[in-house]
Amino acid sequence: MAQPKRIGVVAPGTRIDPELAARVKAFAADSYLDQAPQIFFHQQCFYTAGHFAGDDAARLAAFVEFANDPSLDALWFARGGYGACRIAEAAIAQLDESARAKTYMGYSDGGVLLAGLYRNGFPNVAHGPMPVDMIRLGGDAAVKRALAYFIERANESLELTVMFEGKTIAFNIMILQSILGTSLEPDLTGHVLMLEDVGEYLYRLDRALFHITSSANVRRVKGVKLGRISDVPENDKPFGATEEEMVRYWCERSGIAYLGRADIGHDVDNRVVPFGALNR
Amino acid sequence: MAQPKRIGVVAPGTRIDPELAARVKAFAADSYLDQAPQIFFHQQCFYTAGHFAGDDAARLAAFVEFANDPSLDALWFARGGYGACRIAEAAIAQLDESARAKTYMGYSDGGVLLAGLYRNGFPNVAHGPMPVDMIRLGGDAAVKRALAYFIERANESLELTVMFEGKTIAFNIMILQSILGTSLEPDLTGHVLMLEDVGEYLYRLDRALFHITSSANVRRVKGVKLGRISDVPENDKPFGATEEEMVRYWCERSGIAYLGRADIGHDVDNRVVPFGALNR
Repeated sequence: MAQPKRIGVVAPGTRIDPELAARVKAFAADSYLDQAPQIFFHQQCFYTAGHFAGDDAARLAAFVEFANDPSLDALWFARGGYGACRIAEAAIAQLDESARAKTYMGYSDGGVLLAGLYRNGFPNVAHGPMPVDMIRLGGDAAVKRALAYFIERANESLELTVMFEGKTIAFNIMILQSILGTSLEPDLTGHVLMLEDVGEYLYRLDRALFHITSSANVRRVKGVKLGRISDVPENDKPFGATEEEMVRYWCERSGIAYLGRADIGHDVDNRVVPFGALNR
Repeated sequence: MAQPKRIGVVAPGTRIDPELAARVKAFAADSYLDQAPQIFFHQQCFYTAGHFAGDDAARLAAFVEFANDPSLDALWFARGGYGACRIAEAAIAQLDESARAKTYMGYSDGGVLLAGLYRNGFPNVAHGPMPVDMIRLGGDAAVKRALAYFIERANESLELTVMFEGKTIAFNIMILQSILGTSLEPDLTGHVLMLEDVGEYLYRLDRALFHITSSANVRRVKGVKLGRISDVPENDKPFGATEEEMVRYWCERSGIAYLGRADIGHDVDNRVVPFGALNR
């Protein structure tokens, strides 16, 4: 029988409450019994410094400590929020071979780190649920999906079309925009690029899509799939197009294939999208 | 006596009401009597297509028609909102020598067009008040500042430090972010870069500043000056730094000189910043 996985959790952006950490650990123990992964929440997850889970130095140190810890199999981002971009470049520069062997998972703001890790050749980087998803109604299903991926790369955890595509990658739209041209932007050539977002006016997503689809790197993707765009705030005027029409518009303008919908988003149905070719 | 200036107005983003156009024309006539500029609001300013002042084709056609009209001295953007990025590249590709001779003014979303015009060597491009500013309390002062710049390049209209700097340029933060790496991004080498924004959470501005200050082009500026950051929405947690501390942080990280405050913003005190060296 395989050894139970050991999963470290850090918060590169915004903090979580200790109660949430306890809930996730208890849920993992109940769900998997003797195969339950051991989950280690770094104290840094609970720090507060303004918007952030501790200041840049604290978040950086925690990330590097756990990433380079050879006793851990995986590094899981507690939640998104905001702050990963402030530490990503410095963190990646300090990582060693033990960090390279780990599996990384998160989404939203954490996409900044996933991008940088993937750009630097880390082979096991995935867009998928985080501990904070436990808070959502039915969120245990999302957390279980992440755990099953960590434990056994469960097929049921994967976004359904991942198995039929050569290379995949997934991002929050605003996050992908924010790394264009930076040292964190990965080579997207030939990838199916899945995009999702939450809580943004459509006109802002339209502006970000202008930017994203203007990129020569993005134009080399195999195609774009649209995940869920949720909690769009009501604007003083209707945008005049649906989110799918909007994405089709920018794909058409920029010569990018639009390949339909993807099963990802800021919700309990968010499925795991490994970066790159499926790696078992 | 010089001929009265002839100013065309188009709306590359969001529409305005005909009543606003009438108010601005009446105000110009009252303020300058026989030196009053003639202001021509293109019908397109009043169109509606979802978020936009007419669809892309209508906004593009109006912009190109007025820009290439040799009887007009200046092209003024009615307001910002959103939409300039959808037409900027195509518009600039259709402009002729008559368009090159004109003065252009606007800000906010219009910065996308100003950027592209300046990148393409148009010599008279300025960040400054728009007709829509008339709606603000005390907005006639902002409109008069723009008119005085159109009529006689009035020194009193200028951002005060412009006269002492070699080259200047000004942008809304989110707008500058959205053109990084695109065909609209101008060479910023040696410019004093003035930045302003409105209605954004500080954490979003922080993310945009990560992106902006990561740019090699931006790192070649002479320095950054911070205009006003207004109407910041209340977040569920305080950001933990003021807007000026935030800008200083990113300037310091990226080796950009922070040069203090600039007298620009989404308000009636917004002063004119010509792009490039002061040109009389």
